[in-house]
Formats: sequence, C-alpha cells, structure tokens
Amino acid sequence: MRRFFLISLVSTTVGAGALLAGLDSASFPAQATAAGTEAARLISDAKAAGLAPLPSLPPVSDPSAQARVTLGRRLFYEARVSQDGNVSCSHCHQADLAASDGLPKSIGVFGKTNPRNAPSIFNAALQFKQHWRGDRESLEDQAEKSLLGPASFGNPDYSVPMATLKGVPGYAEAFADAFPGDKEPLTSKNWGAAIGAFERRLLTPGRFDAFLAGDEKALSATEQAGLRKFVDLGCAACHNGPGLGGTSFQKFGVVEDYWKETSSASPDKGRADVTKNDADLYVFKVPALRNVAKTGPYFHDGSVPDLPRAVRVMAKVQLGKDLTERESADIVAFLASLTGAAPAEFSPLEPFPSAPSGK
Amino acid sequence: MRRFFLISLVSTTVGAGALLAGLDSASFPAQATAAGTEAARLISDAKAAGLAPLPSLPPVSDPSAQARVTLGRRLFYEARVSQDGNVSCSHCHQADLAASDGLPKSIGVFGKTNPRNAPSIFNAALQFKQHWRGDRESLEDQAEKSLLGPASFGNPDYSVPMATLKGVPGYAEAFADAFPGDKEPLTSKNWGAAIGAFERRLLTPGRFDAFLAGDEKALSATEQAGLRKFVDLGCAACHNGPGLGGTSFQKFGVVEDYWKETSSASPDKGRADVTKNDADLYVFKVPALRNVAKTGPYFHDGSVPDLPRAVRVMAKVQLGKDLTERESADIVAFLASLTGAAPAEFSPLEPFPSAPSGK
Repeated sequence: MRRFFLISLVSTTVGAGALLAGLDSASFPAQATAAGTEAARLISDAKAAGLAPLPSLPPVSDPSAQARVTLGRRLFYEARVSQDGNVSCSHCHQADLAASDGLPKSIGVFGKTNPRNAPSIFNAALQFKQHWRGDRESLEDQAEKSLLGPASFGNPDYSVPMATLKGVPGYAEAFADAFPGDKEPLTSKNWGAAIGAFERRLLTPGRFDAFLAGDEKALSATEQAGLRKFVDLGCAACHNGPGLGGTSFQKFGVVEDYWKETSSASPDKGRADVTKNDADLYVFKVPALRNVAKTGPYFHDGSVPDLPRAVRVMAKVQLGKDLTERESADIVAFLASLTGAAPAEFSPLEPFPSAPSGK
Repeated sequence: MRRFFLISLVSTTVGAGALLAGLDSASFPAQATAAGTEAARLISDAKAAGLAPLPSLPPVSDPSAQARVTLGRRLFYEARVSQDGNVSCSHCHQADLAASDGLPKSIGVFGKTNPRNAPSIFNAALQFKQHWRGDRESLEDQAEKSLLGPASFGNPDYSVPMATLKGVPGYAEAFADAFPGDKEPLTSKNWGAAIGAFERRLLTPGRFDAFLAGDEKALSATEQAGLRKFVDLGCAACHNGPGLGGTSFQKFGVVEDYWKETSSASPDKGRADVTKNDADLYVFKVPALRNVAKTGPYFHDGSVPDLPRAVRVMAKVQLGKDLTERESADIVAFLASLTGAAPAEFSPLEPFPSAPSGK
C-alpha cells in the first residue's frame, strides 16, 4: 500500500514543469512550413534555443485543482468500474475519432447497444446541456450517470463502482488530494467532478477561429463559399455560438418527418420521452458541429454515414431546401475547417494497477 | 445585509453564458481585415449570424472554481485592505500598461517607494518563482504577502485587512462560495488563492506564438532578423520557455558590473539579501519578456527608460557584446512581437460597496 501511495504522490506532484507538460503546447494550430526556407530554419532554431509558445491553457490554480484534472484524466481510462470490466469513458470517446466512436450507436457493457449515437466530448463544456435529449445537466452529471446506464457502465447503483475504486491502491489518496475539503472524497459525485474538470479543458480551436479573428486566408475559397451558404441558408440560426450548436433544443424535422430522409429504422420521440410533453416530440439538442468531419455517422441514431448526405438531409427536413451537389460540397468543405487537433492532454493516463491479490 | 447577500449571490451565479462572457473571446489575436473584401463581409455576416470563435480559456469546472476566479478579480481592485485605503493590486498592475505601472519603482501606501520595479502579472503563472529575487513562491504567495509589504499594502499583520473585508457586506458570502470546504473561508491565505486563481488565467498569446506554430508571415522580415539575432547572440540561454524568461536565476552583470551601464544609483545585492549566500550576489530572477515593449522602464530598479538601451545594456554586461544600432533595433522589433492583447477578463470588477454605516 505504501508503495502505491508513493506512486500516487509522484503522479499528482505539482510543479511548473509538470503543469505545462500536461498542456497542449500552443494557442495556434501547427502549420506546415516549407522546408528549407529561412523562416523555417529560424522557427526550428528558436525552438532548439528553448523558446516556446504560450500554452493554450493556463496552468491550474492550485494543487487540488491540478489533482482533480489528473485524476479525471486517469478515471477516463478506467474500465474496472464497468459491470463487465471492459467499458471506460474512452471506449466511446476515442482520440483518433475526435472523441467519438465511429459507431451509429455506442456499444456498452456486455455488448449492449446504447439508444443513441455518442457525441464528441471535445468542446462539450460549451454546450448548455449534455446528451441528445438534454437530460444531462453538465459534463459532471453525464459522467456520474454513465456509471449506471444499462448500456454504458451498467452498474445497479453507485456503491458498486465506488467499492471497486476503493479496492484499487492509489485511488483513495488520489481522490483525497483532488477533493481535500471532503470528509469522504471517493464518491460518485467526485468521480463526475474529476472527469468534468478534465473534459472541460479539451478545446480544439482551428482554422475557422483564425478566420473569425480576421485572417482572411485561413479558409480557402471553397470553404468560404461553404460558410457563406451556411450563413445565408440559415443553418446558423440553430448551429451558433462557439460550438456551432449545443445552445438550444429544436425539432428534428420541421418541414417533413426526419425519418423519411434519414432511413431511420423507427422514429425516436426525443425530448418528449424525457419531459412527457407532446410539444417536445422529435425535439433534440442541436448538436455542435466542431470536428463534425471526424465524428460520423450522423444524427442521434447514426443513421446517415456520410457528411454530404447529412448536410442535404438537414437542408431538406429543417429548411425545405434541396441543395445541389456543389452547395453541399461547399458546406462540407467549410465544416472540415471546424476540425481541430486533439488536445495533447487527451492522451491516456493509465489507471492505477490492481492490488497484487487481484482484488 | 440581506440585500447585499443577494447581490453577492447574483454576481457569483454560474451559467454557461456568464462563464463565457467573462472570458476573452478568441484563441487567435484579432487581425485587421481590409474593409470591403468579400472575406471581411463574410466574417462580419458569420458573426452577426451568431457564429463565434472558441474561447481561449475553457469554462471553469465548477461553481466554486468560478467563484474563486470572480472573487479574485474583485479583490484585485480592492483598496480598502491597504493601510491608507488607496492601494489595490491594480495600483501597480494596470491594464493599459500590460499589467505593470510605468514607474521605475512602484509607489505603495502613503506614497512609499517599493525597493524594486513592478513586473507584469500577465503570463506570470508560467514563471518558476515570483518577484525579482524569487522570494515569492507563487502568485498566491505573492498576493498574500503583498498585504503586509511596508510599501505595498502596509498592514502590520493579516488580521487587519481580513477584519476590513469581514466588515464589507458580501465578502463573507463570496469567500464561502469560493472555498466551500473551509470552516473559516475569509482568510489571507484564501485572499491569495482567489487572486492567484484569477491571475493564472491572464495569458496573452501573440504573433510570436503564431510564428512558432509555423505561420511564417506572422513576423515581419525585421522582426525575424531580430529573433535570429536574439537566438544567435545567446539571449535565449536565459530568456527561454513560454515566458521568454522566468525560468531561472542569473547574475546580472556577468562580464561587467551592471550598474556601470544602467546608471543605477546604488547596487542591489539581489538574491544574496534573501539567501545570505555570497554566491547569490547580484543574482536575480531572469525577467520574462512577454509584453516587454509595454512594461518599461526596465530592470529590477527601473533604471533604464527605453527598450533599445536596455537591449544594449544586456548584450554588454551579460555577453560582452557591443550591439550596433541596427542590431538592437531589430531585436527591439522582435520583442514587440511578444506583445499580446490584455485579456478581456482583466477588466475591473467593482469591489462590494461598504456598509451603509460607513464601517
């Protein structure tokens, strides 16, 4: 036990170097430089001399705040809290898929299929609610309740996964470091708080942000044509704010029933099943479009595999417009400019090893 | 009291909108766009349609963390805690001077002169120690001890300014919201913690960061010539890392005594006065160069008013080099690329009003 406690202390030690090492290294997305130019050599020499860009995220303010982020990053990859021992948060939120999973609907414990598509958690802190039906108030709420979801972690109640964590050497100390004011730090609420603290730092700025800041060359002519179409068609009426969505609930299928265009197997009543209010029939949270080019298949049921068709479906059922191939291609080109690099912080931090007894 | 308590609650209420409103609005510094171009119209139309850049800082993870930042921002402008009632943190760290004060040495309570020049607090969280002699371990430590400094806030002990804050309706509740785990939240340690939480978010990325990310056009030819000189001369041996300094202690005056070049009135023994170790004679923390073009006069004693001369002094006393006018002008041009916009969050949040009795 003493040995693991020391490991825990080391991993949560806070120094300027350690703080910065965990952050992504630039406020600006890396650009390809033409090899051999004097400027490229200068950039290389300046870095070799120890000059460095500002981190895109500020260092965390105190040791317990840093410990929360570090713990959340570790818990994100913790599968032992799931009923079959195979499902962690990272199961449905994978780095190479912009923190989504590439499936129409996610697969949880014992191969069970979730009712809806897994959205990316990148930039998700900017959304007003979580989940397609908005029935998770925050990232913290989402993370905690995932422990119980029958097709996510599958636990009957919170005590089961918390008992599992208590049996792993290191977690009791890591939770105590992260929540020093709490008499009982290792709780499902703090599981959610730690994962939320980690996830909230996962922002992915990209070329679109540079364009909005006035860099006219940040988007190509085709991408600009797509953005012009996106704005003029009225897409931004719902897909707005820094996430380009995630700011409101809207009915999916304003002009015609969505399932006629998406080939969905059966209609999902959406928010009406949550609120028991007929006015919420087929109402969903407007999904955020950041990284949308990497997070197919599309819609709450993953019923549309490709982005051009998803764009045409939206224009058709929301706005009553038939887009030409060219128009949807331009919009798709614009949407690709919303892709940002996965934050360096979004890389696995191994869970603590199980106790030698195998407990 | 009830009335002020309500004000306090409102001001610390956390909603997605409130969180974002307090953040600066882009990861990319604004660029001037040529008026009338199609791209400029598109940027304008996209913003008008509600599209927005990602914030450069992630939303704070929980209500108490947000309450700490908000409280710290308010305390930063609180002058009643100083002995003469006139000195707040903002007194020496002003927005239009990149959070410095433009004086050779800062003026504190009752017009007393501080022993050294006030450094900027922008990006200061990235430094390994605080103050010229490194005798403040962190931003939090610096903020707390400033309460007692005879030429800063001037209090005889911490109980005096804390009693003052307790007498202002609103602060007891604001500290309790910010430090919910503490039995006695309104302490000098938490004064430091709140101000530190606020200051740690004040990063100022600029064109230099874009250049390091590979945008070869982000620096002009003159600025690139200056960076080349900066690297080749060896300036980056000490002025390195994301702050371009703030990572080590070094002797000021390696080749010759610094005061012969700076016209300093009398030598400052630097860190030797802190450690009582002769090896630390004239040793100071290497100042960070972010925003240096806006934070004159220069050096620990503010003895050199202009940046070109400060650059020549450094080359002379640290490296034994006599720079030409052209060389120092190029380096000064490069240093100007380290200027970043003041974060939107660095704007006054008014302290709570005094109790009606005037207490």
